[in-house]
Order: sequence, then structure tokens, then C-alpha cells
Amino acid sequence: MTSLVYLDYASVFVFALTGALVASRAQLDIVGFIFIACLTAVGGGTVRDVLLARPVFWMEEPTFIMVASVAAFIVFFTAHLLESRYRSILWIDALALAVAVPAGVAAAVSMESTWPIVLIMGVSTGCFGGLMRDVVCNEVPLVLKQGELYVTCAFTGAGAAVGLLALGQPLSIALLGCAVVTLALRTGSIAFSWSLPVYKSRPPRV
Amino acid sequence: MTSLVYLDYASVFVFALTGALVASRAQLDIVGFIFIACLTAVGGGTVRDVLLARPVFWMEEPTFIMVASVAAFIVFFTAHLLESRYRSILWIDALALAVAVPAGVAAAVSMESTWPIVLIMGVSTGCFGGLMRDVVCNEVPLVLKQGELYVTCAFTGAGAAVGLLALGQPLSIALLGCAVVTLALRTGSIAFSWSLPVYKSRPPRV
Amino acid sequence: MTSLVYLDYASVFVFALTGALVASRAQLDIVGFIFIACLTAVGGGTVRDVLLARPVFWMEEPTFIMVASVAAFIVFFTAHLLESRYRSILWIDALALAVAVPAGVAAAVSMESTWPIVLIMGVSTGCFGGLMRDVVCNEVPLVLKQGELYVTCAFTGAGAAVGLLALGQPLSIALLGCAVVTLALRTGSIAFSWSLPVYKSRPPRV
Repeated sequence: MTSLVYLDYASVFVFALTGALVASRAQLDIVGFIFIACLTAVGGGTVRDVLLARPVFWMEEPTFIMVASVAAFIVFFTAHLLESRYRSILWIDALALAVAVPAGVAAAVSMESTWPIVLIMGVSTGCFGGLMRDVVCNEVPLVLKQGELYVTCAFTGAGAAVGLLALGQPLSIALLGCAVVTLALRTGSIAFSWSLPVYKSRPPRV
Repeated sequence: MTSLVYLDYASVFVFALTGALVASRAQLDIVGFIFIACLTAVGGGTVRDVLLARPVFWMEEPTFIMVASVAAFIVFFTAHLLESRYRSILWIDALALAVAVPAGVAAAVSMESTWPIVLIMGVSTGCFGGLMRDVVCNEVPLVLKQGELYVTCAFTGAGAAVGLLALGQPLSIALLGCAVVTLALRTGSIAFSWSLPVYKSRPPRV
Repeated sequence: MTSLVYLDYASVFVFALTGALVASRAQLDIVGFIFIACLTAVGGGTVRDVLLARPVFWMEEPTFIMVASVAAFIVFFTAHLLESRYRSILWIDALALAVAVPAGVAAAVSMESTWPIVLIMGVSTGCFGGLMRDVVCNEVPLVLKQGELYVTCAFTGAGAAVGLLALGQPLSIALLGCAVVTLALRTGSIAFSWSLPVYKSRPPRV
């Protein structure tokens, strides 16, 4: 189980980096950085834990908040070195998604949930932290970006985990597969504009 | 109790239609349609269940998520046939409100809540799903539309249920009255611009 | 413990005033005023109680909703007398923050939480009600206002309470210190533009 805890820490740290980068675009002070970093870092896992009716993970172990705060400090003092903060958010967020989706899957599996719930917890843990970050900071939510895969990556990654578990693979392999599929799809979407066909209305309609 | 389950299914299906229609205005892909449809469909009931500290309804019975996904598919392939998607959202949302408010009332009554809680659960279940949909998708929330009744319809409908129960009517009658009042007020507001006086500041003030 | 209940009531009333004032800027009707007032008034405390896995405070005692509704009525009929509703929101919100942060601290202390959780509950109770109000009503969230302290005030106030408790002071003194520090910092920030250095990227970067 200890490796699962590392997964949660990694997810918190990487999402906190994206939260702090969004805070830098809003030109907040250091406490604002910490606030948005924490909201982004623990938002998805909090939704997951409330839905699963289990204790919220960072309430039991406040080190998570320290980790997110450290990430906020790092960004506050180094973000000006980045070539493009927006591109950095995209790429780091992709990494965070690839860590958070397996973290959500692992939590649901540890509670012996059925596979639809495992799928949904993977997608929720992956997507809600970033969604809260974007809604609070008035950014266009990444889940809504046209012509890019986002929820699809979380969904396919969680689906890969469910499939590997159904094939009798151990949890560690399933989580690894989940992370690889999520990361590959999301980075492919950013780098090569992979996408699914989007809905288009006939021109004159609104 | 089975008829109450149908109420939840109907509410989920109809709210999912509105979520998918909003997703079509944001030109998302099919997975984005499913995500927004599910968020809208189960958002209000999830808030209700978390507040009532009872298990979240769709976690126990994932068929709800399937129903919302089917609604998303239907809209993805047929929305272009609609004359105006925005008008469709308004009308279908009115129907969803008229199903969700009694669903919230029923849940609170089944837990023997006091009447103010019954009122609030009716309003919350009716309004929060659509509110999340609109906030996430950057639409002006329907609850904020000027010159139209919205929260008022949910409130009056839930009040009708409370009144009918206080008069000793059976739950089924109270829920039917709630649905009829909510639907009549909301459709009347859309069709005939029924409204309450809104707050107006004196012109030069801000 | 009774004085703690008064703290919750005061927080609910004052936040409800700010919610109703924001509703007046959105030109809603009276039911819309009540809806936004209640959301603002109980939002922060609801997040706190869900995170602490304890019963939501206003579900146990619906008088809180009545208090928020009364505040909405008062604002609906008197807001036009204000010189500037936006300035009024700022000042009343400062007062609400200075009442809500100690209310959050008190709740966490009563559950014998560790000090990081006490800090976080103080900040969350103070900030989330106003955050929901601003997100729903499409106002720029006060937590994001540049060149003003906001989360910082809540954080320092909650920190003062933690420090006073660590020094062996009774809870009442700690809560009073928390309120005074929060209010002094926030009003100082509004009146004298006190602020922390904000993040600034080098000019040509985005």
C-alpha cells in the first residue's frame, strides 16, 4: 500500500505546480499561490473521498498540504524563468492527470467498488482539481478545450486499468498501464493535436 | 418506493439532455458530452445526498450513469436537427426541474426531515445540477437570468409539496402537485415572461 | 459553547448581507436574493462540516436559513439607499470574514483537530462562501483581487488563534484574537491598500 501513498503525494505535488502557475497568470501574492495550489492539488481527491464516503485523505495526513505549499513557493520564485507559463501548465497538467487517474482508480479498488465506480473515480480524481482551479481563476477549463483530448484521456486510462484488472493482472500493473495510457494520449493530444470529432451544428444555427 | 426510483431516473435522463445540449454549444467531443451530461444529471442529487449524509444515489446504482450517457449519445447525433438548441435547453431544463424538485422532496421526506429541510432539498436538487453545468461551461446560469422565474419555481413547487403533506395528503399526491406547480410556473415564465419584480438601483448608482 | 453558536449566527447573517448585495448587482428578484444569500451564508461552513465529516450545521438547525433570508429581505428593500453597493460589499464582507474564520477555528478545535487542520478550517470557512457567491454570480472572486490581502487575512487570523492556543490561552481569547487580526488586516487592506508583493512576470512573457 505504501506505493499508493507515493502516488497521492506525486499527484498533489504536480497538480499544485499547475495551480501555482495559474495563480501566477492571475498575479496573486504568495498566500494566493498557496491557496490555489492547495485547491487544485487536493480538489479531485476530495471529491473522490466525499463520494466514496471515506475520510478526506489530506485531513488525515496534513503533510499533503505542506507538499502543495512547497510547490507554490517553488513556482512563486521560479516561474519567471519559464519560456511560456501557459505551455508549462499544459504539460505539467498532463503529468498530473497521469498520476491522479491511477490514484483515483486505486482508491476505488481499495474499497472494492464495482468497475463503473472505479472508472468514474479515476475520471473524477483526475479532472475535478483542475476544473476547480480553472473555474475559480476564470480560465477556460481544460476539460472544455476544443480539439483536444482531456476527459477522454482520463476515461481511457481508467478503462485500461479496469481492463487489466479484469484480465487478472495485479493492481500495480493495472495502475502503471492506466498512467501510461493517460499520459500517452494526453501528451499526444497536446503535441500532435490528436482529437476526436467534435460536435458541429450546421452553420446558421445557434 | 419504486415510483420514486423512476422519478430519479427521469430527472437524470432529462437533465443529461440539457447538459449534452450545453456541451454541443461548447463544441465538445462525445466524451465531453458524456462528462457534462453526467455532471448535470447527478450534480443536484449528489449535493442533496451529501447534505443529508446518505450514500450518493448513483454510487449505489451506476445505471444512472449509463442513462445519462445514453442521453449524451442521443444529443450528440441528433442535436443538429433542432431548430434552436438554446430554446430546447430552456424547455427541457424546465421539464428536468419539474422532475428533480419532487425527487429532492421525496428524498428528504423519506429521511423524515423537518419541513424547512424538505423545502431546501427540493430547491437544491432542482437547481444545483443546472448551476454546475452553467458554471463549468461558462454559460450565464439560468438561476441568474433576469426577468424569468427559476429558483422561484423550485421554491414554490417544493412549498406546494410541503403544504399538501401538511394537509394530510399522501406523498404521491404531494409530489404530483409539486411537479405540476413547478412545471406550470417555469413554462409560464418562459412562454409568457412571467416574473417577479427585480431589484433596480436608482440609475446613477453602481 | 453557546457563544460559539452566536458566532455561527453572526457569520451567517453578515455573509448573507454580502450575498444579497451581489444579487442586487445581478438584478435578481427576491427569491434570487434569498438563494444567493443562503449560498453565501452557509457555503463556507458547509464545506467545513463536509470535510470534518460532521453533520452540516444548518441541516440540524434551519433557523440559520431563516436568518439568511431575513438578511436578503433587508437588502432587497434598502440596498438602493447605499452610496455604493460595491464598497458596501467589500466592507461587510470584511466583517463576515472576521466572524467566519473564528467560527471555522472553533469547529475544528471542538473536534480536537491538529493545528494544521485548525488553520485550514479557519481559512476554508472564511473563504468558500464568498468564493461560491462570486463564481455563481460571475463577479471576479475577492480571493483573486490583485493588490489586496484576502486569503492572507484569513490565514493570519487563523494562525493567531493557533498561536494563542499554543501559548495556553483559553479558546475565547484565541477566537477574539483571531477575529481582531483578521478584521484589522482586511480593513487595513481595503482602506490603506496594504498588500504583499504579487507575482510579476517579465513584461514580454505570457
